[in-house]
Amino acid sequence: MDEAKEECGVFGIYNHEEAPNITYLGLYALQHRGQESCGIASSDNRNIYFHKSLGLVNDVFKENTLSQLKGKNAIGHVRYSTSGETLLKNAQPLVADYYYGSISVAHNGNLTNAHVIKEELEENGSIFSSTSDTEVVIHLIASSTESLLIDRVVSSLKRLKGAYSFLFLSEKEVIAARDPFGFRPLVMGNLNGSVVFASETCALDLINAVYLRDVEPGEVILVDGEGIKSIFPFEEEKKSRCVFELIYFARPDSLFNGKSIYKLRIQMGMELAKEANADADIVIPVPDSGVPAALGFAKESGIDFEMGFTRNHYVGRTFIEPKRAIRHFGVKVKLNPVLDVIKGKRVVVVDDSVVRGTTSKKIVDMLKLAGAKEIHLRLSSPMVTAPCFYGIDTPVKDELIASKYSEKEINAKLGASSTRFLSLDGLRRAVCAEMNFCEACFSGIYPQAIYMETQENRQLKLFSKEIF
Amino acid sequence: MDEAKEECGVFGIYNHEEAPNITYLGLYALQHRGQESCGIASSDNRNIYFHKSLGLVNDVFKENTLSQLKGKNAIGHVRYSTSGETLLKNAQPLVADYYYGSISVAHNGNLTNAHVIKEELEENGSIFSSTSDTEVVIHLIASSTESLLIDRVVSSLKRLKGAYSFLFLSEKEVIAARDPFGFRPLVMGNLNGSVVFASETCALDLINAVYLRDVEPGEVILVDGEGIKSIFPFEEEKKSRCVFELIYFARPDSLFNGKSIYKLRIQMGMELAKEANADADIVIPVPDSGVPAALGFAKESGIDFEMGFTRNHYVGRTFIEPKRAIRHFGVKVKLNPVLDVIKGKRVVVVDDSVVRGTTSKKIVDMLKLAGAKEIHLRLSSPMVTAPCFYGIDTPVKDELIASKYSEKEINAKLGASSTRFLSLDGLRRAVCAEMNFCEACFSGIYPQAIYMETQENRQLKLFSKEIF
Amino acid sequence: MDEAKEECGVFGIYNHEEAPNITYLGLYALQHRGQESCGIASSDNRNIYFHKSLGLVNDVFKENTLSQLKGKNAIGHVRYSTSGETLLKNAQPLVADYYYGSISVAHNGNLTNAHVIKEELEENGSIFSSTSDTEVVIHLIASSTESLLIDRVVSSLKRLKGAYSFLFLSEKEVIAARDPFGFRPLVMGNLNGSVVFASETCALDLINAVYLRDVEPGEVILVDGEGIKSIFPFEEEKKSRCVFELIYFARPDSLFNGKSIYKLRIQMGMELAKEANADADIVIPVPDSGVPAALGFAKESGIDFEMGFTRNHYVGRTFIEPKRAIRHFGVKVKLNPVLDVIKGKRVVVVDDSVVRGTTSKKIVDMLKLAGAKEIHLRLSSPMVTAPCFYGIDTPVKDELIASKYSEKEINAKLGASSTRFLSLDGLRRAVCAEMNFCEACFSGIYPQAIYMETQENRQLKLFSKEIF
Amino acid sequence: MDEAKEECGVFGIYNHEEAPNITYLGLYALQHRGQESCGIASSDNRNIYFHKSLGLVNDVFKENTLSQLKGKNAIGHVRYSTSGETLLKNAQPLVADYYYGSISVAHNGNLTNAHVIKEELEENGSIFSSTSDTEVVIHLIASSTESLLIDRVVSSLKRLKGAYSFLFLSEKEVIAARDPFGFRPLVMGNLNGSVVFASETCALDLINAVYLRDVEPGEVILVDGEGIKSIFPFEEEKKSRCVFELIYFARPDSLFNGKSIYKLRIQMGMELAKEANADADIVIPVPDSGVPAALGFAKESGIDFEMGFTRNHYVGRTFIEPKRAIRHFGVKVKLNPVLDVIKGKRVVVVDDSVVRGTTSKKIVDMLKLAGAKEIHLRLSSPMVTAPCFYGIDTPVKDELIASKYSEKEINAKLGASSTRFLSLDGLRRAVCAEMNFCEACFSGIYPQAIYMETQENRQLKLFSKEIF
Repeated sequence: MDEAKEECGVFGIYNHEEAPNITYLGLYALQHRGQESCGIASSDNRNIYFHKSLGLVNDVFKENTLSQLKGKNAIGHVRYSTSGETLLKNAQPLVADYYYGSISVAHNGNLTNAHVIKEELEENGSIFSSTSDTEVVIHLIASSTESLLIDRVVSSLKRLKGAYSFLFLSEKEVIAARDPFGFRPLVMGNLNGSVVFASETCALDLINAVYLRDVEPGEVILVDGEGIKSIFPFEEEKKSRCVFELIYFARPDSLFNGKSIYKLRIQMGMELAKEANADADIVIPVPDSGVPAALGFAKESGIDFEMGFTRNHYVGRTFIEPKRAIRHFGVKVKLNPVLDVIKGKRVVVVDDSVVRGTTSKKIVDMLKLAGAKEIHLRLSSPMVTAPCFYGIDTPVKDELIASKYSEKEINAKLGASSTRFLSLDGLRRAVCAEMNFCEACFSGIYPQAIYMETQENRQLKLFSKEIF
Repeated sequence: MDEAKEECGVFGIYNHEEAPNITYLGLYALQHRGQESCGIASSDNRNIYFHKSLGLVNDVFKENTLSQLKGKNAIGHVRYSTSGETLLKNAQPLVADYYYGSISVAHNGNLTNAHVIKEELEENGSIFSSTSDTEVVIHLIASSTESLLIDRVVSSLKRLKGAYSFLFLSEKEVIAARDPFGFRPLVMGNLNGSVVFASETCALDLINAVYLRDVEPGEVILVDGEGIKSIFPFEEEKKSRCVFELIYFARPDSLFNGKSIYKLRIQMGMELAKEANADADIVIPVPDSGVPAALGFAKESGIDFEMGFTRNHYVGRTFIEPKRAIRHFGVKVKLNPVLDVIKGKRVVVVDDSVVRGTTSKKIVDMLKLAGAKEIHLRLSSPMVTAPCFYGIDTPVKDELIASKYSEKEINAKLGASSTRFLSLDGLRRAVCAEMNFCEACFSGIYPQAIYMETQENRQLKLFSKEIF
Repeated sequence: MDEAKEECGVFGIYNHEEAPNITYLGLYALQHRGQESCGIASSDNRNIYFHKSLGLVNDVFKENTLSQLKGKNAIGHVRYSTSGETLLKNAQPLVADYYYGSISVAHNGNLTNAHVIKEELEENGSIFSSTSDTEVVIHLIASSTESLLIDRVVSSLKRLKGAYSFLFLSEKEVIAARDPFGFRPLVMGNLNGSVVFASETCALDLINAVYLRDVEPGEVILVDGEGIKSIFPFEEEKKSRCVFELIYFARPDSLFNGKSIYKLRIQMGMELAKEANADADIVIPVPDSGVPAALGFAKESGIDFEMGFTRNHYVGRTFIEPKRAIRHFGVKVKLNPVLDVIKGKRVVVVDDSVVRGTTSKKIVDMLKLAGAKEIHLRLSSPMVTAPCFYGIDTPVKDELIASKYSEKEINAKLGASSTRFLSLDGLRRAVCAEMNFCEACFSGIYPQAIYMETQENRQLKLFSKEIF
Repeated sequence: MDEAKEECGVFGIYNHEEAPNITYLGLYALQHRGQESCGIASSDNRNIYFHKSLGLVNDVFKENTLSQLKGKNAIGHVRYSTSGETLLKNAQPLVADYYYGSISVAHNGNLTNAHVIKEELEENGSIFSSTSDTEVVIHLIASSTESLLIDRVVSSLKRLKGAYSFLFLSEKEVIAARDPFGFRPLVMGNLNGSVVFASETCALDLINAVYLRDVEPGEVILVDGEGIKSIFPFEEEKKSRCVFELIYFARPDSLFNGKSIYKLRIQMGMELAKEANADADIVIPVPDSGVPAALGFAKESGIDFEMGFTRNHYVGRTFIEPKRAIRHFGVKVKLNPVLDVIKGKRVVVVDDSVVRGTTSKKIVDMLKLAGAKEIHLRLSSPMVTAPCFYGIDTPVKDELIASKYSEKEINAKLGASSTRFLSLDGLRRAVCAEMNFCEACFSGIYPQAIYMETQENRQLKLFSKEIF
């Protein structure tokens, strides 16, 4: 994928001696899902304790912080947010006190009617101390008249539209909830008898927890002293798992609805080779996300696979550029072509997707400079023509290159020898369409009606600005 | 005074080109009122911007932070809080978004019915993200049905009991409000046409603003594009200015209701000498707060004034003690007697007050070790027998030495040659009783009924714990 | 390779408008060679300016620091050091003032007679403010009686034994020097007319400099206002380039003596497959260093290549372990097997080398747990049987598993189905032996006599301990 | 005094279980002597351990740092340096390894022939890694051929000219040395059998050590396992204690050559009143340094003493000024007049000295603005007409207002009603001239010939620049 697009990761555990420490490790494994801020809330049947800050898990949590988070229950969150909004006040888990005690929430997703509910709540006198859509759910829970937490949560969730995988923590309970469409992932595991929830199975692997199953779309799971209780309180909806988790977000060692993401990506590469082979000498990936698809392409096509780019893993969020621009500097600081591999070769370069096209352009140019004779760009996803409203940070429609140009026109703009996207059918074949995916970013057909609200509109709704 | 007891300081300015910078300077001058956290919120007629953090004004605000706080209106806050609660989530100004936009508030005081209102609000579904009593006022404003901010503020304030000097900031307005008893101070000044509010006049001095007058008890002042509007919306109450501002808190260069605090403290010392002179060689203060009263005592008694203690001004909040205790170490790190001044002398040592008595004991002991022949402890305030519920961090009644022991018994416990407190009448004579003071800490008679709630009870109400 | 073994990286540039900024970028590209501390020294024909600190390049240098480093000449350094010695006082470049002005030096390598020279210098009254072997060369330069810097440098270098690639910076000159054996790499490039030196060509790539050639073993290059002057002042020695640069250290996109490291690693994998093929279903690398050799193995053997491990790139130097150990935790936090790839498979796992064997053991165990039917460990280097004294941080002989056990015994200890190392002859075939390598770590035959001094002895020589 | 002029403080202790912790406390008490950097070195008979950094004692040392400093012997240092040179490389104690082991040194003073010795040493090949004059003494010790440390130290000290109070720490010894003129103070105490050295007695007070005596000018004291050995190895010189310690630097609770500094300052004020009384209503000090002299003036003159200025003790080294200058802002942020005390009064304002005159000008102006009817500036020291080369950071002669203008002209420049300095004779009477002081800053007559070297020249000698 040409621009880092991330979302969030959640992790939770109930009744474990080292709940905060285990949560810290879980977040460590989910760090690729968000690098701006992170936090952990824990509870000991009496209070909720929390700590959160801007920064990586490794920097935010130290021995002394972790040791102050008491209790056997904990939830955690890693967060990515759009530029200009790296605010502490939006870091999660959110924690609040209300009539029945304290509540903490960690959210992966995007609530498409948050602004509507927010307005309603504000009309009734609610105040908001973050600019995150997640805050509305705490308000709904607090204003619920139900006497059991699970009922307050369910009645609140019924008000929400959009995408969510939620973890709630009270003094004594952990509740996991996934929206009826199942947009965002959420899995369940077992660590020596303690229930664990995580955005991806790789978090279970690190702590040696056993993967039990996915939390089902529309499922709400309550874990408390009585045990585990699963309910399906919502009207059923068409399952709409985010196919971009498969294409890009999730770590390849994670399972998606029980299936190996690595293998599904290999499949995408194979389908791509079937549909859009090229007469070439080598197949190279754009690392790291393009590696499995490139391997699949190589397998299917029989063309040699090479690691044509070296990636610098020490690149931070920002770096000081020289005053006189170095060509393609932004991407060069991350990727450098292996000259002897590329030079004089007809190259198939496999990436996962194209969003704005700016990075793809730089990659094509770098390969040219490195002496590639032909450059055949292959993308293991269809053309991204429509923005995502379900938790992925894609730009507005206008900035999506594929919303305005055809495959051929894109190829001309990028200056490649050929540019081919995996077809939607090809993708479906690769990922076993019966898993039921949301394909809105390719098709523009949204599983659930979207309120007329652009990102610009949302910005206007943000009144108070925290400064760092 | 024997233990550092602090409260908070507020500052605000309307329509000044450098509002955030001026607010930073104002907080600098008010730093003695709170050293745990500080913050500034500014507004530019469209948005509210804010930054707050744990730490001193000088550490929290840097060029780049200040320059991001936009707009010509600003309010600021320095905060002190009881131990174990040095939490970022309680730092002020509080900022929230609600139906009509954004609102920010800085508060000095203590709302005695906050827990009652909080419960009510929670019953109606409100959530609380701080453990500060101040948060309730934002909820009240947000749930008000009035259409003008000033009316929402007034109707909210009418619900509150206890002590408050408030500064509110909206996108376009600054509102100052002082409770009808006038517990906490608040003054008004003019800086080249811009209205300024501050807890003390020393903040006006630093920025070269002219002191206009005190905000009156019960007064609410709205400053906006239309000008300045003053209203007195509350029922009149008996004026009850905090006499401890005079005795200890306020800087001596500040004015209190227009009178020089330095001079009033000199008066206290003179009254003390009239009531409780001693046959002694020298009068020495416990610096810095005891200096003016000691000077007054010396003037009246004719006994030589000497600076018998040197104060170390580089002492931070914490320091690493040696493993084997050094006698009186805690106070020694701050104060050291000047041996040649003390040795062989009959010493009158003047302090402002005694709370727990622990520090006074150490001071008496240090003077003995330094060779004082007699030690006559004189306090420029009456005996503190009852806790304060109006914004001063005094311990519970049980820990107040004067709530359990007579002057003589205290003298015996401290081991001084004599110990004498200024009488309540003496204090009244010194401070011009017609200014109308709250004397609750001496008399136990509270100007306003206090809800049955001890600090312990309040602790139980705090559910969620932020960790640092 | 089973344990992170790193050394140092150097970068220098003469006469470039943005010399410090370019050096910063060069160090960015060399960050994989050392993550403990870094520094830059620059000169403007009058003074030397410098800044260095513990931390990554991205954290140590900010706009304001870089902008204070004046001048058109600069050298930089990234450093790795053995545990317990992460000391600021050893951070490089070292800078000192002496008779002729100022001198700065950045060093990659290890001087085997440093302790002998140090003793001599100390006998003559020299003082040492670091525990780094590099400091002796500054002393030698300072005590030289030659009047030209180049002559002082050369006469000093003649005293040194061991491995060095040096960059020296004076007020007006940059000097590069490589020991006559050529143990450590050093390349030369051209950036729009400015001469550039770097440990690896990947640093040239990032700044768009053109690779000219390697600095030759035994070559000293002076760059000043007169131009570039190359001399070969030492007696010729048998070229002994570090073969471990090829096997592990260098980035695959770098050139080694003009040859592609990536391709040489592919060759190693191919030779390994020729020598030690296995009847297996898949070939997987230990990422990232094992990837090219695994690709080569797969190519030669015809067995399918898969990315059987996912690597977490957010792992810091330390992390908080859970109190109750998680099995193989240390390696798991970095690597996680892709279950569906491994399960039920006969796996060839390719790593670059084995040092202590502890990590290899964990990798074999992880693959077993992941359900591998057979595990054939293949190493793309021969058995490491002797410690390195030329700049690589290998443990003492006793801790090298291959110094005590045969290939078969190692296999038994690791519990793999088979374990095979590339033979020394195989390695030679792969890397074109005519490049002349140092093979001491495999053969125990050192190109230059080593002074009898173990690391333990050296530790005893360190008197003063900086504390962090 | 009108500009903060500071120097350095040293502390040392031999054979105490908590030597580093006690040293930390000693530095705490000496913090007023230097706020830029601080450090502690300790030894345990085998090694020297050290930690130093920019910052205050309270910020630089934490539990974990202190606990790593091992051993029962320790020396410490607080440092002030001239602007633009706040460099970590100059922080003390300096620590170096040399032929006989390790050595650490803490220095208060200024070596006037350091540049000459440095040149000599450089000619012989020495390198310098700091720009501090102190480094030369380590070089001299290292190049000494004596076999005992005490002899190496003594032979080195014999080479030095200028001012020094040195503490040396080896693995097993502590050595204290004071130059034969006795320019800078150094006292000796006893803490339960452990020998303690400190710049001032206030450091002894804090740790409950007993003051034994001053280290004598020209005395060198060796403390080791054999006990305490005092020698006087130098030719005797005219005692020349720094009178400015009395006037300004030292804390009033310290003893100077056994006499109370507070009382000597009272005497100065009294002499000043005798010489230069004024017909005035009140005497006020410029706090804190002017307080005792003002008290003395008031006593002698019979004029009322008042604290006419309030000092803000939270002022850091830098603060953000408003863009549009506030009048006299720099001094206002520290001092604010008490209006009701000043207004309409004829004021005697007592300060300790005038250097450039800029601050005195601001003080006079502030008093005018505050409504003083007359302003009589009185200085408790003679006119400073010549720079100090013995450890005090005074500006070059040209910037000393009293080097160019008479008392009357200065008064005219400051705009006061009258300005009077204590006469040199008056000072002598006050401080008991038989103590033998250096009066060079008043008389221009230096006890020891000064090498022709201005601060500018010295700047030119500094080649390498550390950047922060």
